[in-house]
Amino acid sequence: MRPAFYISDGTAITSEVFGHALLSLFPMTFEHHTISFVETLEKAEEAKAKINAASKRTGQKALVFHTFVNPEIRKIIDSCDGVIYNFLEHFVSPLEKELNIAATPKAHRTHSIQENSYDYRIDAVNYALANDDGSNVNNYADADIILVGVSRSGKTPTSLYLALQYGVKAANYPFTEDDMEDLKLPEFLKPHKKKIFGLTIDADRLMDIRDNRMANSKYSSARQCRMELREVEKLYKKEKLPYVNTTKFSVEEITAKILAEKGLQRHKY
Amino acid sequence: MRPAFYISDGTAITSEVFGHALLSLFPMTFEHHTISFVETLEKAEEAKAKINAASKRTGQKALVFHTFVNPEIRKIIDSCDGVIYNFLEHFVSPLEKELNIAATPKAHRTHSIQENSYDYRIDAVNYALANDDGSNVNNYADADIILVGVSRSGKTPTSLYLALQYGVKAANYPFTEDDMEDLKLPEFLKPHKKKIFGLTIDADRLMDIRDNRMANSKYSSARQCRMELREVEKLYKKEKLPYVNTTKFSVEEITAKILAEKGLQRHKY
Repeated sequence: MRPAFYISDGTAITSEVFGHALLSLFPMTFEHHTISFVETLEKAEEAKAKINAASKRTGQKALVFHTFVNPEIRKIIDSCDGVIYNFLEHFVSPLEKELNIAATPKAHRTHSIQENSYDYRIDAVNYALANDDGSNVNNYADADIILVGVSRSGKTPTSLYLALQYGVKAANYPFTEDDMEDLKLPEFLKPHKKKIFGLTIDADRLMDIRDNRMANSKYSSARQCRMELREVEKLYKKEKLPYVNTTKFSVEEITAKILAEKGLQRHKY
Repeated sequence: MRPAFYISDGTAITSEVFGHALLSLFPMTFEHHTISFVETLEKAEEAKAKINAASKRTGQKALVFHTFVNPEIRKIIDSCDGVIYNFLEHFVSPLEKELNIAATPKAHRTHSIQENSYDYRIDAVNYALANDDGSNVNNYADADIILVGVSRSGKTPTSLYLALQYGVKAANYPFTEDDMEDLKLPEFLKPHKKKIFGLTIDADRLMDIRDNRMANSKYSSARQCRMELREVEKLYKKEKLPYVNTTKFSVEEITAKILAEKGLQRHKY
């Protein structure tokens, strides 16, 4: 398998995103290696040795995705046996020309603390945890968004992702079996209707997930899953609530769809 | 303020990371706009209209970062009044040459579900929630990592980030006031010592965070914060536990440092 390295003097998240976006275009599998915090010449030499060893071991030149701006470190990495892809160098000078200002490489800390975004996100995580699974229905005035859906339709991971990535305060409220006989929007949700976003999921997938949790239970039965999903989808339509079927989407995609639909901008940067 | 647009037919996370990495090199502030799920020609026209409106409103050509592979959508976006930066086009053909295989653009879904990574991450989120804050000290055999530290040193957000981004199962255990008189590694942690990673934080920062939570309490006092931090750092050194001071780091950086130090590879891709 062809080795691919994602390297940087910080988290290497940018290098990973850059490299994965490109490699995902090719119908091949790769051996992925991330090397973060390559901040010294010694660490650069170690990274170079790892790249060279992987190239030798596999008999294929490693693909190396990096974003170094320090010229000395960059020189060491660029002298490895791998093939170098550095997107900064292709775009920095056109941008300097367009912006009519010089780049200041020291500022390159894409995934470090900026503009109090950290506090914002930690607050949002605390909010999501305190308002998970209907645990506190009196707090919804502070929510940016309130996710609703049946048990195991993806509410909790989505709430946490909204908080951690974007500083969005997301509460979530489950519709349980007891609600189903005559499913209505609960009174405490009505004043916050504009913040509500529904999740749904295919019955087969829900059965699988619930069966992993409680095998052979009523909770995971086809009949129960189908009934609950039918009721919540009927409610979403009746109340004209926006909703998304999470079955085929990653948590990133569900989150991006919610932000797009609700017109919420991302607070991260 | 110069407008910047991050656009794609998916989550637009790749376009954001690409654009932010570049713009963070410049000592300027920008007006950030993300447009995700531009999957049709109509949506492309809408995005183009937004770019043109922003350029007109600010009197400055918008910077447009995109990753479209669909030629018809791309043509519409590329015909806007903004300045286009598309990193795929610079790197796809060198990579095709190097890999000796043609790119298959339909595979470009960097942030969608792949290789069961979703289940893996959801399992890890459930694990992190069930094993947050010392709530279940008998489950540590299943942990990939166990974070320890005083209250409000960053354990919970870091555990959740490890789970959501990388599918790493992280438990966390707090050292509380009651533990401090003669702080030792609890018996139930000893068998899992290799998985333990310590967090610490500057006393002033800890006081601020705790004071926001419980103002003017013993819990947030300078004396208490300093004492707790002194004791846990003494324990980390005595037990030779790896640890990181979280004060100046984002949750991404803390996570990347932990993965690097423990030699854990990221499971996401």
